[in-house]
Order: sequence, then C-alpha cells, then structure tokens
Amino acid sequence: MAPPDANIHPVATGRAAETVTQHQDPQELTFYSGWFCPFNQRVWIALEERGIPYQYKEVNPYKKEEHFLRINPRGLVPAVEYRGKAIYESLILLEFLEDAYPSHKPNLLPSDPYERAHQRIWIDHISKTVVPAWMRLLMAQPNEQEKLQTALNELYEGLRKLQREVKGPYFAGEQFTLVDVALVPWVVRDHVLAEHRGYKREDVGGGWVEYAKALETRDSVLRTTSERDKYRVLYDRYLRGEAQSEAAKAIRAGRPLP
Amino acid sequence: MAPPDANIHPVATGRAAETVTQHQDPQELTFYSGWFCPFNQRVWIALEERGIPYQYKEVNPYKKEEHFLRINPRGLVPAVEYRGKAIYESLILLEFLEDAYPSHKPNLLPSDPYERAHQRIWIDHISKTVVPAWMRLLMAQPNEQEKLQTALNELYEGLRKLQREVKGPYFAGEQFTLVDVALVPWVVRDHVLAEHRGYKREDVGGGWVEYAKALETRDSVLRTTSERDKYRVLYDRYLRGEAQSEAAKAIRAGRPLP
Ligand SMILES: N[C@@H](CCC(=O)N[C@@H](CS)C(=O)NCC(=O)O)C(=O)O
Ligand SMILES: N[C@@H](CCC(=O)N[C@@H](CS)C(=O)NCC(=O)O)C(=O)O
Repeated sequence: MAPPDANIHPVATGRAAETVTQHQDPQELTFYSGWFCPFNQRVWIALEERGIPYQYKEVNPYKKEEHFLRINPRGLVPAVEYRGKAIYESLILLEFLEDAYPSHKPNLLPSDPYERAHQRIWIDHISKTVVPAWMRLLMAQPNEQEKLQTALNELYEGLRKLQREVKGPYFAGEQFTLVDVALVPWVVRDHVLAEHRGYKREDVGGGWVEYAKALETRDSVLRTTSERDKYRVLYDRYLRGEAQSEAAKAIRAGRPLP
Repeated sequence: MAPPDANIHPVATGRAAETVTQHQDPQELTFYSGWFCPFNQRVWIALEERGIPYQYKEVNPYKKEEHFLRINPRGLVPAVEYRGKAIYESLILLEFLEDAYPSHKPNLLPSDPYERAHQRIWIDHISKTVVPAWMRLLMAQPNEQEKLQTALNELYEGLRKLQREVKGPYFAGEQFTLVDVALVPWVVRDHVLAEHRGYKREDVGGGWVEYAKALETRDSVLRTTSERDKYRVLYDRYLRGEAQSEAAKAIRAGRPLP
C-alpha cells in the first residue's frame, strides 16, 4: 500500500505547469522532480536561471518506485540523470550544474575562491539551522507551546544571522546566487508558518521583509511554483503531525534531516 | 572557568609535532588547528598532501577565546585565515583549498563534473551517516546495550555502503581523493571503538580491513597524527558520558552535529 503522503496532487500546476510543458523533449540531462518539494525547487530554479536544457520527469518519491530507486537509492527527489549517470542531493546538484555547464550564464557561484567559501558557509547555515528549525516549527503541535516557541525563536535567530550577511537586494548584492537559491523555497512556503504557527516576516527584523520579497518575486521562482492550494494537502499532514516522510520521521526521532 | 573539555594536552605530539615545527613562518594562509580534532585533521591532511604553504597555530576551541571567535563565530576548529579573511567548516575548507590552489598537485577533487558530484555524494554520506553513528557509538554507555548495538549496526551499515563504492586501494582507485580525506580521521581513531565498544574492522565486511590499512598508513595521515595516549584524555570523557563539547551536546539532544 502506498503511504498516505503519496496522495499528493500528481503534477505541477499554475506557472510551474507551463514550465513543465516547455521541457518535455529528451536532453542529456533528465530532471527527476517532485513539483511540491522545496529541495527540488532549488535545482529547478538553477536550471531555469541558467537556461540549461533538461527534460522534466515528475516523480512521487513517497511511492519508492523501483525505477526511481535505481536512480537515487535514497529514494528522494531531486535527482538527475546526466549522460546516463545518476546524481542526487539538492546542494550537490547545484554544485554539479555549476561544474558541468560553466558557460551557461549567469553562474550562480562566484569564481573567487573566498567568495565561493563564503557562499558555502551560509548555505551550510541554511541546511544546519534554518531548514531544521523551519521543519520543527511546522511540526510543533499547538498544544506543545514550549516546543513551538523554541522552534520559532530558533528560526528567527537563524534568519537574523543570515540577514546580517545580506547585501541586498540579494544575498551577494545585485547578483542572484546560490545562497538565495538554497533559501528561497522555504521563503515562498512561509505563509504556512504565518497562517498556523505565529511566524511573521517582520519579526525576523530589519530588512527581512524586503529580502523575502526580492526572492519570492524572482522570475525563476515564480516559474517553478505551483498553485498555492495544491501544496495544502501536503502541509496539512505536517501541521496535524501525521506526515510520514523521511524528513518528518527524522524530526520526530531527533535525527538530522535526510 | 574553562569547561572540563579544555583540559586536553595543549599541543601536538609525535609525528604531528614535527609537522607543526615545519610550519611556523607567516604565510598568506594561517591554519587555526586543534591537533586532536578529526574534522581538523581533514584540512591538515589536504594541506600536507598538496604542499600548500601555511602557518600552523594551535587553538583550544573549548576555551572560546575572543580572538578565535572573531575568526570563527561558531567557535570550532578547523578555521583558516586567508589574506585576512576567515573561512571555517572542514568540508568547505577542503573545497576552498581545491579552488584557491588549483596548481598545487595532486588535486584531491577530480576535474570531471560527474566524478566531483560522485565524491560529494559519498562525503555527504560520511557526514550524515558515518560520523553521527560513530559518535553515538562512542557515547553509548555500556549499561545501554540496546543503544550501543543500534549505533554499532548503524555504523557497520554506513561503512558497508561506502565500502561497496571503494575501488581500492583508495576510494577512487590509485588516487587518494577527498572521500578518503573526509573519512580517514575516524579510521585512525577507531581503536577507541575497538577497545571499548565492540567494534571490529573485520565485521564491516570484505575489503574494509585493507581499505582502512591503506588510509591509516598514508604519509600525510601519519604526519598529522599525535601520540595515541594523548588522545585518551579526550575520548575518556566521551566514553564515560561526560563530554561537554558542542558535538556531545548535539548527540545527547538528538540534534545534527555542529
Ligand atoms: N537532502 C535531500 C532532501 C530531499 C528530500 O527530503 N526530498 C523529499 C521531498 S521534499 C522526498 O523525496 N521525500 C521522500 C520521502 O520522504 O520518502 C536534498 O537536499 O535533496
Ligand atoms: N562541522 C565542523 C565541526 C568541527 C568541530 O566539531 N570541531 C570541534 C573539535 S573536534 C570543536 O571545535 N569543538 C569545540 C566545542 O565543541 O566547543 C567542521 O566540519 O569543521
């Protein structure tokens, strides 16, 4: 039997559906994508930003289908097949696209070694602090006020640290770079936290509202975002504490996210 | 008052002390190092493998001294100052050394984009699975047999997955690469698990004994390893469940390692 998380809307909708339509032809890069997944959207944004040719294939990762496990044994989207070879993990895929398509402009990782390291430090901060706190807040139940407040404070604290490094309008200034890409999927989904968990962009502090706005209105972000109500089924399961995804299980067990 | 973990031997000893002596002069790269730290040894090995000029400075990260927090606000070794700019996080530093010193041979990350991604996938596996299981096993108390067995099995399982990718003698074949660098500090320390936690290299399965031997006898590894008994004070605190390092606290709280 398929797990309950498998009952998500089967395909991308809205602006994202148009983007899917434009990427049906075989290419040397096949993008195995879950339209709803924030990790996945990172890679999709990078492909779109840089005009890299790709064929889009929708995968429901909760079904753990054989053909997909042969590509990513971890069973998670996003994954890519490139000249017949499989690659997975969103952050590794972002680096891969920089390495494999150096001449597709704009590059999202600067060429200066120190600047690259600086980007990676803040992406590491997003992975280790921001995303886990976001997930803990989403999954904290309203009758667990202390847990909820702790997660909310940890999220604010993590975002404030990041904010202090933002040059504006984007992380590194005028150029949209990998730190922005790594973060934005959780910004376009923060309305869930705002509606149900007391999160307010203004409460992060000076500049966050503007930075979030700059990120969520970026064209590549809009072009990879589905209709808002289609995300609801998925987030409702987290909000009610019923999600059975690998990430949900990890948060409950106090383990690192997969 | 300094935390109890601060009572470690103050400087490198044995072969590592000789290496320190050879790296006293100012260079454009200053390496802020804790001689005992496995994350730190990754960076040290890479510096030594590639003959990158560096000045060695010993730091006791448990003391959280002001001057060091100005370099790494997270307060962890390893950290680097490069032309006056600070970089930290061992894996980011490994990438940085590849980016900043491309002509220092041998490179530890291949140039082919797929091979780079493949290396990063297995480094990610080491970070997310191997190192946390290693730490949980170290910290599992002998009166918590179930916890101990679970950690031991998770460690074996994680190492077996990695083993299946090892071409031999090193991960990628004849060349020593970043996957080897990222893993070896936990191989040279596995005698602690063997003496106190029932870990056996043979029990990982076919080939692991040979791979571990190839790693631990690599010259750059020997040149960055101190006398065995000097590590004891530190590991005894973990074995007795008394360590107060950030990593120990994270393991106890069921949080990702810092
Ligand atoms: N670390 C992975 C995480 C990817 C991930 O968690 N994907 C989720 C969807 S958002 C998934 O495929 N889940 C399947 C499952 O939980 O069974 C990455 O960065 O790519
Ligand atoms: N993620 C870091 C971890 C570094 C780390 O945990 N270093 C330890 C020593 S092995 C440290 O500095 N600990 C200081 C403390 O726990 O207060 C890296 O990869 O560099």
